[in-house]
Amino acid sequence: MLEKLDLTKKMGKEEYKEKMEHLEKSLGKLQRRCKELNIPVMIAFEGFGAAGKGLQIGKLIQALDPRGFRVYAVKSETEEEKLHPFLWRFWTKLPEKGRIAIYDTSWYTRVLKDRFDKKVKKPELADAYESILSFEDQLTEDGMVIIKLFLAIDKKEQKKRFDRLLASRDTAWRVTKGDLRRNEKFDKYQEMNEEMLARTDTEKAPWHIVEAVDRRFATVKIYSIVEEMLARQIEKVEGSLADDRAGRDEGPGTDAAETKELMESILGKVDLSLSCGREEYERELKVLQNRIRELHGELYRRRIPVVLGFEGWDAGGKGGAIKRLTAKMDPRGYVVHPTASPNAVERQYHYLWRFWKDMPKAGHITIFDRTWYGRVMVERIEGFCTKSEWRRAYREINDMERTLTREGVIVLKFWMQIDKDEQERRFRERQENPEKQWKITEEDWRNREKWDQYEVAVNEMLIRTSTANAPWIVVEGNDKYYARLKVLRTVVEAIEERIKTGGKRA
Amino acid sequence: MLEKLDLTKKMGKEEYKEKMEHLEKSLGKLQRRCKELNIPVMIAFEGFGAAGKGLQIGKLIQALDPRGFRVYAVKSETEEEKLHPFLWRFWTKLPEKGRIAIYDTSWYTRVLKDRFDKKVKKPELADAYESILSFEDQLTEDGMVIIKLFLAIDKKEQKKRFDRLLASRDTAWRVTKGDLRRNEKFDKYQEMNEEMLARTDTEKAPWHIVEAVDRRFATVKIYSIVEEMLARQIEKVEGSLADDRAGRDEGPGTDAAETKELMESILGKVDLSLSCGREEYERELKVLQNRIRELHGELYRRRIPVVLGFEGWDAGGKGGAIKRLTAKMDPRGYVVHPTASPNAVERQYHYLWRFWKDMPKAGHITIFDRTWYGRVMVERIEGFCTKSEWRRAYREINDMERTLTREGVIVLKFWMQIDKDEQERRFRERQENPEKQWKITEEDWRNREKWDQYEVAVNEMLIRTSTANAPWIVVEGNDKYYARLKVLRTVVEAIEERIKTGGKRA
Repeated sequence: MLEKLDLTKKMGKEEYKEKMEHLEKSLGKLQRRCKELNIPVMIAFEGFGAAGKGLQIGKLIQALDPRGFRVYAVKSETEEEKLHPFLWRFWTKLPEKGRIAIYDTSWYTRVLKDRFDKKVKKPELADAYESILSFEDQLTEDGMVIIKLFLAIDKKEQKKRFDRLLASRDTAWRVTKGDLRRNEKFDKYQEMNEEMLARTDTEKAPWHIVEAVDRRFATVKIYSIVEEMLARQIEKVEGSLADDRAGRDEGPGTDAAETKELMESILGKVDLSLSCGREEYERELKVLQNRIRELHGELYRRRIPVVLGFEGWDAGGKGGAIKRLTAKMDPRGYVVHPTASPNAVERQYHYLWRFWKDMPKAGHITIFDRTWYGRVMVERIEGFCTKSEWRRAYREINDMERTLTREGVIVLKFWMQIDKDEQERRFRERQENPEKQWKITEEDWRNREKWDQYEVAVNEMLIRTSTANAPWIVVEGNDKYYARLKVLRTVVEAIEERIKTGGKRA
Repeated sequence: MLEKLDLTKKMGKEEYKEKMEHLEKSLGKLQRRCKELNIPVMIAFEGFGAAGKGLQIGKLIQALDPRGFRVYAVKSETEEEKLHPFLWRFWTKLPEKGRIAIYDTSWYTRVLKDRFDKKVKKPELADAYESILSFEDQLTEDGMVIIKLFLAIDKKEQKKRFDRLLASRDTAWRVTKGDLRRNEKFDKYQEMNEEMLARTDTEKAPWHIVEAVDRRFATVKIYSIVEEMLARQIEKVEGSLADDRAGRDEGPGTDAAETKELMESILGKVDLSLSCGREEYERELKVLQNRIRELHGELYRRRIPVVLGFEGWDAGGKGGAIKRLTAKMDPRGYVVHPTASPNAVERQYHYLWRFWKDMPKAGHITIFDRTWYGRVMVERIEGFCTKSEWRRAYREINDMERTLTREGVIVLKFWMQIDKDEQERRFRERQENPEKQWKITEEDWRNREKWDQYEVAVNEMLIRTSTANAPWIVVEGNDKYYARLKVLRTVVEAIEERIKTGGKRA
């Protein structure tokens, strides 16, 4: 692929000037149109050292309104980044809708430099590729334009450029030892790059090879690629807006037969009569809380991150369970993230962005009080997303959780199950007790009216997203004591299991 | 102060239980009321090692809704934090309005541990104290409750606790070498703490000493302090809401005599006839841009951060100047931050928060296209803040800029000045040129009608906030060539000056 490139391609000054005059104007216009249409854009610059990535980024942004883009230089991971799954640093650097992010080297570093430096071992490599593909897939599905540029020069040209940089005190510091090592073993490194190009050249996020020996030729080619990719997405979005105006009908979310089957599946079989006496509860609670405190220290020392997600019916006991769970934990080692409707900033990103942002670093516990599963429950039922969006979400969520567990995160998801009568009893109790009135709102009563719809959605969610690595635990919740102990016990067992099997990875 | 403490204070189990029952409920209620009233709260835990900060934080949060607080463990600075002014890490960890942030050790680390470890030298100490005081002052003025708790034990008790921790493999890792050093030199460290308490015990953010030998006594005391501080602020806010309803009149922003004087002051004396021919412009532009590229590399190597703020009349030439300034800069080393009206999230914080967040790290350049000076211009004129708020802002802004420059940041602020006729000419040109139409809106014309009001505000701003360390540069902008060269030349000279005088500090 890279072998057969014609690197002698050149462009004269006149032709360059003429083309650029058109391209610069065109790109400025396209950027403004992307902003109007809320299209986010990622431009990744990869390629060999000294191929001119920095210089070409500098050229590219000349045409752009500086208020609409941001350049990220991707260097070695910071401490903070090292303590997170490798894609975390890119999830936290996504462009908002309508903005452009430009990356000087990108998430591909993982399968290039890191692989070359043996920081990524063979078995992790396949995982890294899979994570990258699902990352790009999720984002493009959500309307992101991902433009991947590979700047190619050959070994000789690279050597020449390094020598020139090394000759001057002012530029020598730009050439790193790693650069020289990769030049020495150019063939080997090129092979890794070719493998990368082949494995990740997808329809939605294709690679564009740029012959980068002649700088003018490369600049014009880059501009043209960006122009084409933006224009294509703009056309697509304009088209779908027109469809929307014409009033597409996606049909009902779930068909009737499916609905019946789903209602009788998981939740229907939960034994809500399970209970536990007060004395037993208090005794065991104490034991479990002490054990959790010990294990929390152990997690910290072993640098194991933990994600606990809580979902369930309103008044299902999420808050109470979280409170008992964290009662004796060191407050410096855990965070509870409540999940409300997305705010104005959060709405400018992929729906998983706000959760990715808050994923725990190694050794810490993050508890989500309501989670990313809102996508397939409230957003599905209230029509906040389209049918194809929530259908796609099962896979996206599974992908995200696999990305996490593969890198060593313990992921547990609790569904707090109660029946409809028990919910009513608890609602009334809240209303009558002045200390608890703030916990109950009109909206809770409104949601209750949609119980059956939720039941279908929850059953489908449990079926589609419970995996060995990131299981759903359905908690029989009519009896609060029983429910809380089950939650604590499950957490204890999962952590003990991980510690017993050693290692960081699932 | 700490010498004379009665550390024998104790509380029995019964009394504790009784008091806590009331206090827990009370704190829960106060937290909800703070949320309703949008009151943000910071609780800083300081005190000697092993005094039980972690444990007491754990106790305190038992009473709080986990969805409304966040605990921060303040350890050694991360790489990223080291590259920023020391308060940056706390500005980025402020609680949103209505939320509580709890800090296990705080911004005081700078004048305690860091001082003890000689990471902070004598001359920097006074600066650090001043920065801390202005930080707290700014936040409390803005309605933040700052609760500062100092947990005291004596040397012997501390030694006993360390020994107990060291005796078990499960807890020994909690005792650091630093802990032991500070125990050995307890008297010296205590003296530093006493100095800190004396210098920073202010009316708005007072210190509360907590005798922490007896844990129950300490817990009840902490709860009581937090209860009182929250209740006091709630009362204050409720009172001022009532005043608002009664319709206070603050009177006009500026009186007539002052207005006349201000209008004739700085802007009136700017020589807008200054200009520059095209040939000279192009020649000098090239020289300056190349020089900036060189200096940008030099800044990076010397780890000098730069903040450039651009303000000016609409169509005053900010965008054009920024474009020429950055044309040959390495895009990985600078960011342009456009400043629009604050979004929903930004409105949940102090108005300086969104700028602090984006301050450059060492070696990088941050360009703000419009700045924090919006507070004393558009917010003043449109009534988005009260008169006392924008009046106070001059000092707050000076404080912030001094905090930055003192830690080595180069700060330059440009005012792009044109006259009213020139603005009209440029507006019309934009309207007639299809390539530029997007640059002009109805709002631009509306703002133009308030020219005189702005002139008063701008003059006052220039007078009150131009300082030797962070000067305003008024740029004669009727001639674009002249203006751009002046901007670039000023930047070059400022960087050269800094490099010549060596060192990081101003």
